[in-house]
Amino acid sequence: MIKLTLKDGSVKEIEQAMPASEIIKGIGMGLYKAACVVKINGEVKDLRTVIDSDCEFEVLTFDSKQGKETFWHTASHLMAQAVKNLYPDAKLGRGPATENGFYYDFQVEKPFAPADLEKIQAEMKRLAKEGYELERFELSHDEAVKLMQEKNEDFKLELIEKHDSKGEKLSFYRQGDFVDLCAGPHIMSVAPIKAVKLTQCTGAYWGKVEDGIQMSRIYGTAYPKASMLEEHLKQMEEAKLRDHNKLGRELDYFTTVDYIGQGLPILLPKGAKVIQTLQRWIEDEEYRRGYQLTKTPFMSKRELYKISGHWDHYRDGMFILGDPDDETKECFALRPMTCPFQYQVFLNRKRSYRDLPMRLGETSTLFRKEDSGEMHGLIRVRQFTISEGHLIIRPEQLEDEFKGCLALAKYCLETIGLAEDVSYRFSQWDPANPNNKYEGTAEQWEEAQGAMKKILDDIGLDYEIGIDEAAFYGPKLDIQIKNVFGKEDTLITIQIDMQIAKKFGMEYVDKDGKMKMPYIIHRTSVGCYERTLALLIEKYAGVLPLWLAPEQVRILPIKPEHNDYAYELAEEMRDLGMRVEVDGEDDNIGPKIKQARFDRVPYMFIIGDNEVKDRTVTVRSRKEGELPAMPVADAIAKLKEEIDTKAK
Amino acid sequence: MIKLTLKDGSVKEIEQAMPASEIIKGIGMGLYKAACVVKINGEVKDLRTVIDSDCEFEVLTFDSKQGKETFWHTASHLMAQAVKNLYPDAKLGRGPATENGFYYDFQVEKPFAPADLEKIQAEMKRLAKEGYELERFELSHDEAVKLMQEKNEDFKLELIEKHDSKGEKLSFYRQGDFVDLCAGPHIMSVAPIKAVKLTQCTGAYWGKVEDGIQMSRIYGTAYPKASMLEEHLKQMEEAKLRDHNKLGRELDYFTTVDYIGQGLPILLPKGAKVIQTLQRWIEDEEYRRGYQLTKTPFMSKRELYKISGHWDHYRDGMFILGDPDDETKECFALRPMTCPFQYQVFLNRKRSYRDLPMRLGETSTLFRKEDSGEMHGLIRVRQFTISEGHLIIRPEQLEDEFKGCLALAKYCLETIGLAEDVSYRFSQWDPANPNNKYEGTAEQWEEAQGAMKKILDDIGLDYEIGIDEAAFYGPKLDIQIKNVFGKEDTLITIQIDMQIAKKFGMEYVDKDGKMKMPYIIHRTSVGCYERTLALLIEKYAGVLPLWLAPEQVRILPIKPEHNDYAYELAEEMRDLGMRVEVDGEDDNIGPKIKQARFDRVPYMFIIGDNEVKDRTVTVRSRKEGELPAMPVADAIAKLKEEIDTKAK
Repeated sequence: MIKLTLKDGSVKEIEQAMPASEIIKGIGMGLYKAACVVKINGEVKDLRTVIDSDCEFEVLTFDSKQGKETFWHTASHLMAQAVKNLYPDAKLGRGPATENGFYYDFQVEKPFAPADLEKIQAEMKRLAKEGYELERFELSHDEAVKLMQEKNEDFKLELIEKHDSKGEKLSFYRQGDFVDLCAGPHIMSVAPIKAVKLTQCTGAYWGKVEDGIQMSRIYGTAYPKASMLEEHLKQMEEAKLRDHNKLGRELDYFTTVDYIGQGLPILLPKGAKVIQTLQRWIEDEEYRRGYQLTKTPFMSKRELYKISGHWDHYRDGMFILGDPDDETKECFALRPMTCPFQYQVFLNRKRSYRDLPMRLGETSTLFRKEDSGEMHGLIRVRQFTISEGHLIIRPEQLEDEFKGCLALAKYCLETIGLAEDVSYRFSQWDPANPNNKYEGTAEQWEEAQGAMKKILDDIGLDYEIGIDEAAFYGPKLDIQIKNVFGKEDTLITIQIDMQIAKKFGMEYVDKDGKMKMPYIIHRTSVGCYERTLALLIEKYAGVLPLWLAPEQVRILPIKPEHNDYAYELAEEMRDLGMRVEVDGEDDNIGPKIKQARFDRVPYMFIIGDNEVKDRTVTVRSRKEGELPAMPVADAIAKLKEEIDTKAK
Repeated sequence: MIKLTLKDGSVKEIEQAMPASEIIKGIGMGLYKAACVVKINGEVKDLRTVIDSDCEFEVLTFDSKQGKETFWHTASHLMAQAVKNLYPDAKLGRGPATENGFYYDFQVEKPFAPADLEKIQAEMKRLAKEGYELERFELSHDEAVKLMQEKNEDFKLELIEKHDSKGEKLSFYRQGDFVDLCAGPHIMSVAPIKAVKLTQCTGAYWGKVEDGIQMSRIYGTAYPKASMLEEHLKQMEEAKLRDHNKLGRELDYFTTVDYIGQGLPILLPKGAKVIQTLQRWIEDEEYRRGYQLTKTPFMSKRELYKISGHWDHYRDGMFILGDPDDETKECFALRPMTCPFQYQVFLNRKRSYRDLPMRLGETSTLFRKEDSGEMHGLIRVRQFTISEGHLIIRPEQLEDEFKGCLALAKYCLETIGLAEDVSYRFSQWDPANPNNKYEGTAEQWEEAQGAMKKILDDIGLDYEIGIDEAAFYGPKLDIQIKNVFGKEDTLITIQIDMQIAKKFGMEYVDKDGKMKMPYIIHRTSVGCYERTLALLIEKYAGVLPLWLAPEQVRILPIKPEHNDYAYELAEEMRDLGMRVEVDGEDDNIGPKIKQARFDRVPYMFIIGDNEVKDRTVTVRSRKEGELPAMPVADAIAKLKEEIDTKAK
């Protein structure tokens, strides 16, 4: 008898080993139809997995994250099948699930156009109705090559060659006459894929951009019910209105320029003003919390990165100036992180226990060499500015200092209004990782992760565990946030590093007179400013909280004769540090109001004869609507209160 | 008869063409002995120049800048002669005058050591007493090669080969049996070089660092009188105490690290705090003056620089990421200037005359690929941050806007206390420049320089003209400043550019409905922050004005029982935005005061029993000495007044 412990704690017994799908059928056909994938002892597995020993057994449907992923991955196979039916010469690239659906890359003579998508979508519907079951099978390396050669799938052959199988067989999935090299998992058949929408076709590259192998990519999404698809499409339409990559450009927060490059946004005056405001606030808040500000160079000779480990573990992600392999000449690299630069502050003097904790903060610019295809507005960029810092501490200070970092991060999120939108990921190394991706011994990792676990559990933080998501030097607490389209990114990170101090020879004299090695916490407080700006634009649909708004008040004189008073008032408010503009154009008040609304200015002060006569203003608040005319001093006091309290 | 108009306006007539030296002898032997060089029609010429037509004629002695340069250049030849006498195998490199003397580079088997310098100095004295006259002669290319081959001067041969003589002869100077390839000018004989001090020997490179050809460089200085040399050496000793490159390190303003690289200083918390203070002040002041802040990327694809002209005119000065010659792959370069990035703000929308002047400011980081040998502390660096900006204007706004830029620069210099230390240079192109160094036509240059001259003369600015000192795109007003050792650098620059708008297709609709091209002013307000910090450290010998001091007040409790009050007071003052530290160590008050003095903290608040009892502080001011105990509120008010007024 094999015992399965179900999610609700109940135990189901089966008499012999059998596939998960059969077990689920036994539980109920309704569940079987909804099942996408199973979690066995916490690990996500294909429904076809044979269960042959006692385990924890959980069925995941489309409602779960992993269920959706599997469903969409199968939908991408369905799309590839449809494409091969309609365009037999198309060669298959890759076809993964995404946050909201899936895509597949094809090499075709003529890139797909929107008209093609309709045809492909119709063919997918037809195939889904056929209800093909997906069959998993395995082939040896040579058999796999033979099959893919027969099918002329050059890119799959390349993947087979790259795959370091160590003699293991390769996994394939077949539905009807369509076969794809694929590790799975997949749902049992294409039948549940009832509602499909192909949303977009774009260009993409196979492998490195520099190699210039162009593919045609089709994006789509799929749902088990038409009503669910409709709901999703409606949400996406609403999201588009908030999309910082559209709204942020329309409102002149930022732009990009082809001949400068992707991932290198130009922050226009409005975007620069918000980031300046955030930056000053963070620098002052950190100073208040005992941080010392530093300003370290954006590049270094390769020698620094050799010591820090970046040269071994991160070289592909760095912009390099010079020939990295020619040791006879100077070679620089732009920094992808601030760490090894900031350590120099500690290293500048002999240190004692009295100097610790040394909390170092920097408004730091970093550079990451990402593929052009990865770029997205202000969220995925090649250069960004981050509230970065390092705490160099005595080991016994770890708990307090880590908690201090987390408190600061939470305070920042709370203040800008993103606290409710984040989730916490405890990012650990992968002890089974065959690559040489992590530094340090298993013992060191156990120690660092153990320390972090204790702290997180102590404060009762609700977190997910992310295996193989650690930094190469230590575990991380990642504060994750989703953009308006549901794509998740790390906004803030706090990391424990027990290894690096040794490499740089960092040490301090302790109370007992002995030289000791400090621990280091790597952390951000509000994260990357560009990304934060993007999230704020999306969160507030362009109407930022008053203290952050690039233009806080626009004064609208009804007629030109009211301009003098308007400019005088603007001057008075600017002297108080408020960001005020006057729309003094010779235009009617109607279009002026319309423009101010479009520009998402939080407050309009409308000035007519009465206001000039009485030294008042009529206030239109974005939040509260039109307010009665009030004395200037009251209006200013109202706004000042809102700014000073950083009201949301 | 040839008429010479002398400096005092008087006219001297000579009957026939003759060398300037002979004419001066005619004026008086005293003047002849003191003469170093002559200015003929404003151009500096060798005393050996034959005067054969009417001209303005001015004799320059050692008191003038050009006189000193010539004297020191001859002293470098004298040193080379001495070296060749003592070390016949030494090969000559280059030997120019510097701000305070001269150097000469030699290739020798064993690099020179301090002990060698004494021998060389003695030999120079001996040779000076011999009183050799310098003789100028010219050789054809082939004769020059022959002579230098005989003398085994490989580096001189290289210079001859590089020299694009266009058939012109090459100029040499001989004194005794020493001959050097040299364009001159030189003084008439080595006799006046009566007081010599060789100050230092260092390594140097011939040509590019990457080529790795090492030279041994000897620095020295020389004066016509021993008393002048003594006075100079004394000044240098005093300068050393202020030298930011020494004091700035001692006081923990900055450091450099070999494995990061030269010219990439790490600003420690004190340096970062001063720059943060300056930066916020400038950003706010610019905002007040109608500037809009931008934040543009630090790198771009090469395509941008091709449009701007940097790719043609500045490529050697840029750090390049990728292969600049491979057009099939992306190639980026770090920006050496902000201009083409900031233009994108203008280009982001269609523009009308109403949008102009558009005043754009940015706290901008720039990168310049300079040789390692050029690096110096915070003054010559490879990466720096600058208060950069561009004014995009209608042509008729040029005068007002240029004056506005100059007013801002003067305000900044006045506020930080450097206004009296600067001089103004009107940097023009060289119409005779044979290189392809400048863009635009002679007419365009005439127009831009004419416009700038009119503005400068209008406001009665006292300026020098610098021929061949312009930017490649237009003339500049450079605000020059000398560091503590007398080395001159540009701190602030204001430039007129009538050409660039066309290249980027920048245009606006004017009132008459026609599309027009704007003018652009490139400018800085306070210049480069690192350089400004260096100058401030030197100017104030490390005791910065209170509003800029990284630590404004240090509170010194006399005994541990006074610590509570000290920390409470510090908290109160920090909440008011002051930078306050407490020296709460368990130590006597004597060493605490000594340390605070060493750290150049402007104010100490000393706390003992009485102060705690009466809620007072005893203030020790760096400027005013010890003041009587005063109520805390009074002390705070006193400091706040000093900070708010930015007192010097």
